[in-house]
Amino acid sequence: MSGSCPIRASPPPDGVGGRVPGVDDTALTRKAAAEYVDRLESRDWAGLTTLLAEDVVYEMPQTRERIRGRPAFLRFNADYPGDWHLRVRRVVADGRAAALVLDVRVGHGQQDACVWLELASDGLISRIVDYWPEPYDPPAGREHLVERW
Amino acid sequence: MSGSCPIRASPPPDGVGGRVPGVDDTALTRKAAAEYVDRLESRDWAGLTTLLAEDVVYEMPQTRERIRGRPAFLRFNADYPGDWHLRVRRVVADGRAAALVLDVRVGHGQQDACVWLELASDGLISRIVDYWPEPYDPPAGREHLVERW
Repeated sequence: MSGSCPIRASPPPDGVGGRVPGVDDTALTRKAAAEYVDRLESRDWAGLTTLLAEDVVYEMPQTRERIRGRPAFLRFNADYPGDWHLRVRRVVADGRAAALVLDVRVGHGQQDACVWLELASDGLISRIVDYWPEPYDPPAGREHLVERW
Repeated sequence: MSGSCPIRASPPPDGVGGRVPGVDDTALTRKAAAEYVDRLESRDWAGLTTLLAEDVVYEMPQTRERIRGRPAFLRFNADYPGDWHLRVRRVVADGRAAALVLDVRVGHGQQDACVWLELASDGLISRIVDYWPEPYDPPAGREHLVERW
């Protein structure tokens, strides 16, 4: 996948009955996104398996790491160190694509994660891209424009 | 100029005939998201102004910085150092919310940014949240599960 084109809503399987293109896909994608986070948070690996395409691809662009296939992705999550917890802060769904901001907590630490999902035509999650933006100190020179929280 | 709103230039079709709520908002949001990036990339500050609510709020959670109001946000962008360039890699739109991945280049450097937009009921962008995830080295111990690119 090049990722170079904006993701657009996919056409529905059929057009009979006046269905609005993409609306059903969007509803299914929104549900899959919520369930994906729920299954991870509850360490429900069997439940997570049912959401994932067998050839799911997981990418972390910051480290340029890629994991291919459901077994390796499940192992990655099951082995992930720390008592991590996930909560959905934002979700947008659009056809077979979704984006989430997760509130991720490990012990006393907190970090947001940006997660991008793509679903295949069978409704299974076929691609996951995770960004893990870390806190940093703001550069000098813009104090007159900003407030801090 | 300040009273015009290009996003709502043409009214949505009327509600008879089973219009699905939110579909028109999504199309307008998708358009606003694309125009937002285009106006920034072309340093079209007058054009950008017409997309933004006067009380737009811009947040960068990693530095816990917040900028309030259109004038300060325009100044922030106009003053931003470096010959930066933006290209949309992904966009998902959902009602009055959108999420984008931008390919950001400054000189020879490249970084992805995750951008979250919210539109007010008048179609103007009322909230912008930017994440700037930086590259980092992968932790040891998962080499058996991943490939690098």
